Amino acid sequence: MADPALFEFLHTEMVAELWAQDPDPGPGGQKTSLLVLEGMGFRVGQALGERLPRETLTFREELDILKFLCKDLWVAVFHKQMDSLRTNHQGTYVLQDNSFPLLVRMASGLQYLEEAPKFLAFTCGLLRGTLSTLGVKSLVTASVAALPACKFQVVIQKL
Amino acid sequence: MADPALFEFLHTEMVAELWAQDPDPGPGGQKTSLLVLEGMGFRVGQALGERLPRETLTFREELDILKFLCKDLWVAVFHKQMDSLRTNHQGTYVLQDNSFPLLVRMASGLQYLEEAPKFLAFTCGLLRGTLSTLGVKSLVTASVAALPACKFQVVIQKL
Repeated sequence: MADPALFEFLHTEMVAELWAQDPDPGPGGQKTSLLVLEGMGFRVGQALGERLPRETLTFREELDILKFLCKDLWVAVFHKQMDSLRTNHQGTYVLQDNSFPLLVRMASGLQYLEEAPKFLAFTCGLLRGTLSTLGVKSLVTASVAALPACKFQVVIQKL
Repeated sequence: MADPALFEFLHTEMVAELWAQDPDPGPGGQKTSLLVLEGMGFRVGQALGERLPRETLTFREELDILKFLCKDLWVAVFHKQMDSLRTNHQGTYVLQDNSFPLLVRMASGLQYLEEAPKFLAFTCGLLRGTLSTLGVKSLVTASVAALPACKFQVVIQKL
């Protein structure tokens, strides 16, 4: 039985290491390490997407795929299900985790909000990568209003 | 239930990313990324060492601690036990894994042996970090003779 904290510890170390190596991009710039983390998440998501058991080989509709992420992917990685899933029925989905494990250990308070993006980039990639393996091209962003809750917005890219 | 491959996928990405960023040190030099990976493993090992349930709060002797690594730590991280543990009874231990999970996906053949160290550095740190949490200072090195088997040599540093 794997220790569920292993992924979390490794993720923390990875973020710290990449962040420390990455020079400050200056005002308005974006840290390269966010892109690197997103890319790593994407490839891990792709690989996991191939491994996760699917109840049906083909999903009937887009919403089924999103439900799969909220349930199966989240349990495989974070040992819990996503708390809510909303959609505008036009290809945009908002997945909310009220207590996102990679943010739980952060102190709460507005001054820590600016630290949050580096703990979300990998998971944005993870969602995008898993969707990619399932044949869905997407853009995934994350936002935090009150720690440790966060929202992932998935916008499906129609071909 | 966490997917046991998650750690493996993340480790692979981490090694690839750090290795790619790290300039070639030239003949005789050592890649900085090996030290970075060892350090990450050390801190993950320290954290895991605090979490792993210990049957006895204090181990009676050094050998009990090494057995704990071979069984409990290995199962928590690699979902298997170490295959053998030998000691010279003078503070040196050789832990052998006949099919080390982080090497299993590598192609076999002598030409791949030189690639092996980057897949072992994190785990050397992991052993050293867990030992550190258990109050034991050590030096840990790894060697591979035939993929995917490998040996970790732990030398206890007496105070």
